[in-house]
Amino acid sequence: MFTLLGSDPHSLARRGRLVTPHGTIETPVFMPVGTQGSVKTVHPAELKALEAQIILGNTYHLAVRPGMEVMREAGGLHKFANWDGPILTDSGGFQVFSLGKIRKIKEDGVHFQNHVDGSPMVLGPESAMEIQATLGSDIAMLFDECPPHPCTFEYASTSLDLTLRWAKRCREWIDKNQPQTNGQPQLHFGIVQGSSFAELRARSAKELVAMGFDGYAVGGVSVGEPEPEMMAAVENSIPFLPHDKPRYAMGLGTPPQMLEMIARGIDMFDCVLPTRLARHSTLFTKNGTVNIKNQTFARDFGPLDEDTHPLCHGFTRAYVRHLIKAGEILGLRLISLHNLHFYLSLMSRARKALEEGYFNEFRKEFTANYKTHTS
Amino acid sequence: MFTLLGSDPHSLARRGRLVTPHGTIETPVFMPVGTQGSVKTVHPAELKALEAQIILGNTYHLAVRPGMEVMREAGGLHKFANWDGPILTDSGGFQVFSLGKIRKIKEDGVHFQNHVDGSPMVLGPESAMEIQATLGSDIAMLFDECPPHPCTFEYASTSLDLTLRWAKRCREWIDKNQPQTNGQPQLHFGIVQGSSFAELRARSAKELVAMGFDGYAVGGVSVGEPEPEMMAAVENSIPFLPHDKPRYAMGLGTPPQMLEMIARGIDMFDCVLPTRLARHSTLFTKNGTVNIKNQTFARDFGPLDEDTHPLCHGFTRAYVRHLIKAGEILGLRLISLHNLHFYLSLMSRARKALEEGYFNEFRKEFTANYKTHTS
Ligand SMILES: [Zn+2]
Ligand SMILES: [Zn+2]
Repeated sequence: MFTLLGSDPHSLARRGRLVTPHGTIETPVFMPVGTQGSVKTVHPAELKALEAQIILGNTYHLAVRPGMEVMREAGGLHKFANWDGPILTDSGGFQVFSLGKIRKIKEDGVHFQNHVDGSPMVLGPESAMEIQATLGSDIAMLFDECPPHPCTFEYASTSLDLTLRWAKRCREWIDKNQPQTNGQPQLHFGIVQGSSFAELRARSAKELVAMGFDGYAVGGVSVGEPEPEMMAAVENSIPFLPHDKPRYAMGLGTPPQMLEMIARGIDMFDCVLPTRLARHSTLFTKNGTVNIKNQTFARDFGPLDEDTHPLCHGFTRAYVRHLIKAGEILGLRLISLHNLHFYLSLMSRARKALEEGYFNEFRKEFTANYKTHTS
Repeated sequence: MFTLLGSDPHSLARRGRLVTPHGTIETPVFMPVGTQGSVKTVHPAELKALEAQIILGNTYHLAVRPGMEVMREAGGLHKFANWDGPILTDSGGFQVFSLGKIRKIKEDGVHFQNHVDGSPMVLGPESAMEIQATLGSDIAMLFDECPPHPCTFEYASTSLDLTLRWAKRCREWIDKNQPQTNGQPQLHFGIVQGSSFAELRARSAKELVAMGFDGYAVGGVSVGEPEPEMMAAVENSIPFLPHDKPRYAMGLGTPPQMLEMIARGIDMFDCVLPTRLARHSTLFTKNGTVNIKNQTFARDFGPLDEDTHPLCHGFTRAYVRHLIKAGEILGLRLISLHNLHFYLSLMSRARKALEEGYFNEFRKEFTANYKTHTS
């Protein structure tokens, strides 16, 4: 289901194609995040217009609200959210640990109170897989514990042991239940953990690969660690992952980080930055991020950026600034569309560069122009 | 520029066509309100998809923010808001009286402090016309005083005298400056005032008609008066207005009220209800309004209403309820789109009924099915 179409002679970058039950994905790919069943402010028809190939849904959030009875009656997340393209669901582990009020981590899963109404819930390997089967996502993620940053070797190692035991239980649940979506087998990705310890990353990757999954994610990154550690986590995982399976770096990243990750062999990304920064009135441009509320844009009648999507064509920086200052939601919408386009078109340009053999130059040029926001 | 295409044998309802510098409008027409240069939450491309023929802009709001220097540099409201269809701008009078901190009403206009930063401003007949000329709207409204409800005959009469003197000054400003937009003369509508006094409505209408404008509005309605008074205000104005000019009831109304107003000879409407009620999670349906937050919709997997626009097709009540409960802006967007479609399609159905001679039946049937929200 994953085909390697080509690779970069100067790096570990790959151009690939992943077939899922709801459609084919060209990689490297950026996946917009639809935590609560909606990519924030964006209409599914707009996601199509932006050429989003796959979106994310969140197991924890959807299980808490609207709840699985509604999701089951709705016939799954595709129908509920009116999106017929591929969907990847995370396992909920990350959110349980970051949002839930944890009562206890037991062998069978995490006992917690949800952040919406405080109801007691349990999420474990079997229930996380069952929920994702009910959501009917094309790609389901294994249930794992994501250790905090920083953490000791001992904590990371003990946590990894649990994550690997959970992975085995997920594997057994999948083999027994053979979940399908759109009449085809759901895909399942294992998650490499091990914090910043090379030895643990290697063990994690090897053991997951031995169990055999449809793809592998590098988890426990973008949790507050410095960028070199983030890169190292990927570098320490990739050598142990098979070439014929897609690789996904979870929760990443800035535009230059994504290009660096592609160069290190990553195929898939998800990140809330395009929509989250939009809520802070921040626009991605080829020279870095800018805040549209800045007075300098009050009479800037140029486009949001040189490369604009038809959905934000014809709107000036002055107008979007006015909308934001006036509290008009269209302003937030236009920045969100623009930022998502920026991320999605960065990936399509990376794919083209890989196809035509100039990925290394593309990556260097982009990164040289792009100033990381320092204020 | 206004052509009467037909009239209803059972009422004063008319089917007409108004040619403006930025396009032709079929009447009766509903005009979505874009107070601050944006119809709340809605993209101009969506307004086109909803078949909105003309939108409103607000002189007071735009003059306060972003301010006229920005509007001038932007090249007017069409360019600024990325909308190439017709625009009607109100004169700002209504907002000055409702939002501004009034310092004094003088013969030359209203001296006030704006509601955004408290800056002192003056808005009068000449400046209101000049601002609207700069905005480049297709239809500019005369500057008037809108008396509060209730008010005494004496207040209403004195206020009307001032409004008529201002109308004369507007007329002189227009004749002298001959404002154009899109290379054609801007249209100007007089506003009939006179509160709930038939004698004053008649005087107001007659004197405005004597001055000669491109259309006439009935103002001072929908300011808190009971519905019979609202109807009477229109009934007392219409007989004195020429058949060959469009008539506009300002700030109206509920769906049945609009049909009743059409039957009384009104051609044009604007109203914030579709987008304002969306912000209260309220959906228009053929049986009246419903609040989507109601628990009864939690598992209602039916469409928002029988008649849905492609933009809200495929979304269920349960999904939109979930979005609203989860604070997702897409929920607000979908209700706004749905409600605007409800208003706009009500007008297109009324036009068709007028063309095919069953307006009276249409109006009765619609009104019988539509329950006015009583809770
Ligand atoms: Zn853009
Ligand atoms: Zn609808």
